[in-house]
Amino acid sequence: MYLSKLFIPITKDLPAEAKIKSHQLMLRTGMIKQSSAGIYSWLPLGFKVMKKIEQIVREEQNFIGAQEMLMPTIQSSEIWKESGRYDDYGEEMLRIKDRQGREMLYGPTNEELITDVFRSSVKSYKSLPQILYHIQWKFRDEIRPRFGVMRCKEFYMKDAYSFDLTDEDAKKSYNKMFFSYLKTFRRLGLKAIPMAADTGPIGGDLSHEFVILAETGESQIFADKRIFEIDLNKYDFTDESLSKVRKDFTSFYAVTDDKFSEKKFNEQVDNKNQIKTKGIEVGHIFYFGDKYSKPMNCLIDDKSGKKISVKMGSYGIGVSRLVGAAIEANYNDDVMKWPKPISPFDVVILPSINKNNNENLQKAEKIYKELKKQNVDVLLDDVDENMSNKFKKHDLIGIPYQIIIGSKSEENKFEFKELKSKSELLSVENIKSKLKE
Amino acid sequence: MYLSKLFIPITKDLPAEAKIKSHQLMLRTGMIKQSSAGIYSWLPLGFKVMKKIEQIVREEQNFIGAQEMLMPTIQSSEIWKESGRYDDYGEEMLRIKDRQGREMLYGPTNEELITDVFRSSVKSYKSLPQILYHIQWKFRDEIRPRFGVMRCKEFYMKDAYSFDLTDEDAKKSYNKMFFSYLKTFRRLGLKAIPMAADTGPIGGDLSHEFVILAETGESQIFADKRIFEIDLNKYDFTDESLSKVRKDFTSFYAVTDDKFSEKKFNEQVDNKNQIKTKGIEVGHIFYFGDKYSKPMNCLIDDKSGKKISVKMGSYGIGVSRLVGAAIEANYNDDVMKWPKPISPFDVVILPSINKNNNENLQKAEKIYKELKKQNVDVLLDDVDENMSNKFKKHDLIGIPYQIIIGSKSEENKFEFKELKSKSELLSVENIKSKLKE
Repeated sequence: MYLSKLFIPITKDLPAEAKIKSHQLMLRTGMIKQSSAGIYSWLPLGFKVMKKIEQIVREEQNFIGAQEMLMPTIQSSEIWKESGRYDDYGEEMLRIKDRQGREMLYGPTNEELITDVFRSSVKSYKSLPQILYHIQWKFRDEIRPRFGVMRCKEFYMKDAYSFDLTDEDAKKSYNKMFFSYLKTFRRLGLKAIPMAADTGPIGGDLSHEFVILAETGESQIFADKRIFEIDLNKYDFTDESLSKVRKDFTSFYAVTDDKFSEKKFNEQVDNKNQIKTKGIEVGHIFYFGDKYSKPMNCLIDDKSGKKISVKMGSYGIGVSRLVGAAIEANYNDDVMKWPKPISPFDVVILPSINKNNNENLQKAEKIYKELKKQNVDVLLDDVDENMSNKFKKHDLIGIPYQIIIGSKSEENKFEFKELKSKSELLSVENIKSKLKE
Repeated sequence: MYLSKLFIPITKDLPAEAKIKSHQLMLRTGMIKQSSAGIYSWLPLGFKVMKKIEQIVREEQNFIGAQEMLMPTIQSSEIWKESGRYDDYGEEMLRIKDRQGREMLYGPTNEELITDVFRSSVKSYKSLPQILYHIQWKFRDEIRPRFGVMRCKEFYMKDAYSFDLTDEDAKKSYNKMFFSYLKTFRRLGLKAIPMAADTGPIGGDLSHEFVILAETGESQIFADKRIFEIDLNKYDFTDESLSKVRKDFTSFYAVTDDKFSEKKFNEQVDNKNQIKTKGIEVGHIFYFGDKYSKPMNCLIDDKSGKKISVKMGSYGIGVSRLVGAAIEANYNDDVMKWPKPISPFDVVILPSINKNNNENLQKAEKIYKELKKQNVDVLLDDVDENMSNKFKKHDLIGIPYQIIIGSKSEENKFEFKELKSKSELLSVENIKSKLKE
């Protein structure tokens, strides 16, 4: 893509309403635009990052046999009355009356709706286990939306739901998702740690949230830093390994402030291993057994023909929030550097453009075409502005690699630079292999 | 995928509420499930078809340089008051009050919101032309939702918006989209004809709807059948060719009932070329100039520095509706056959399964693995039921190719069948090449 043709409205103003790094950066680089309080449009640059995150989340869900589907955003209040949550949920639920006066709502989560889908279709233990998921917009009527996409009203989320016959099987599903989440966040280039968590309005008695460390996070966190030394590669999806992965991760102290105990922390963690920092919740998993299946009558025949309330868990990843969280974790000293798997482009070409001589631009176009042929997702910055401004701009856009075509270039060699590193002079062939690494 | 592991709740009951073929078929094959009046969950089989359609629509939009973004579903009423449509739109707009009493709405279309995005970002003729699009859920509070996904409340739509400096440029953008739509529907395996149309609540004075012929369609249509003989391959995206494609297509009489004149029809179309049938609208394009940019003050500097209201058009394709429309156009004599580009699977393997002998199932699994390796999207029907039931079921699921492993199979040859054709005995190698064709 040529930058001059793209709808990427970059602004030099530091937006006054934006209090945290990710919110500021997303507005300045034209990734998002607020449409009303807590509600955003995703412009092409931000959209591209979000789609990359979505696709990795999807692939990892498919990998464990979860099946994708799609539930609507608008739900009837009836099923929420069945489960008993219609009154409990509070004012964050956006309640709607349709033209015929029926009570509807914009789904903040989908336990009721998936239970309704499941009870009408599956009747026998033979069809279990099942995991269904969707990636869909949700709405939470925040009284004080803030921090851009981190605490907004309309947000994009992957939520999965597991169905099992017994508690024991259900915990296997839970562990499977636990491991899958660790793998997912690693693939996104982020370090997330699982923490024992309260279950809040979802319910149940087993729950972990997955938290990325970032000083601007909303949750205070307390952890044993050895948790970062666990090697994910030593686990697999056998039952034994899955129960080990959860055991190993939860053997280290790691909690948010609502579960924090100073005494326990000091007893269980050596001073030198104590981490006290802030974090951003990017995933949350719950096991709640028959909390929904029982009141909603979602029954399964077991082997003996007895009707059993199906055992359920739910598993969320905040897809739109992850865009902000990735920025919080990677934007330092005025330079943003996207993790490679979710960067909006693989590489940007920066020709020094001189009004009377478009030789550099022509060279840039030639390299652009060569990289395109190799399926490299490349941006060509053909905007006519001086190099110092270009560098500043790309420190914000955060594409991890740059090819600079200017005074230091030789006939067939060009400056190749990884953000926050030194540049080197390389041939196009060598640049290609570097990018393929 | 193994059918026994998939969440595809097939039912033998003919659902009483479903009046048309596509609605019946989608419920019977577990593609969708109604969650409340006019609102559906898309189960894995239906979801897969919709995603294939979405991806083709996306690729064709990207091909003409349209840029993908994403606007939210919930909009503020403010911008609709600016354009003057808040009061005009009527009861089909789902109006919402948030917890602070602010007037919001679930977007039925996005002209206002995209104009708001554009006016805050683009100021100069140098950035034009631009086309932005998104694929997002919309809501229309139908008083009598019916026909399944064809006239439902929550629906999935691609809507694009073009921005140009002059009327003349804007009409080039219109023609570009006109041609792109013809290509898109052809790629989807559907025959759509463009028809002069009323502009309704979108406005403007130039508009075409794209209609698929189907007896169960909602619109009565009157057309000259020679329109089907136009060869799309002879056009390209040069300005000249684009204006020719619109001219050629619109030189033939083709209108829906609201624009029909018996007199003109008989004057312009020989009796032998007259088609009177029904159709389903699957796309609609509009050119409305400054209808939104003027009241909303979306101004662009022209070359002389004068401020001009930007000229806009909008272009919709009903992605979720297309799933139903494709069924209406392809489900005949109790057999559904998906157009190959949007079929939920490329091929299904049907082994005859015998309780005491799983030899056929083993053969099926071997072929399954081989096809998977070649990136063929294959379904293995490992459900234990008799072949006659299997055939009936797959007449409904509509996967265009079948590999049958039963009494007629030889050691290394298997029955290969295209739906509605005769089967032939082929080696796996030959089957692979047939599927690659």
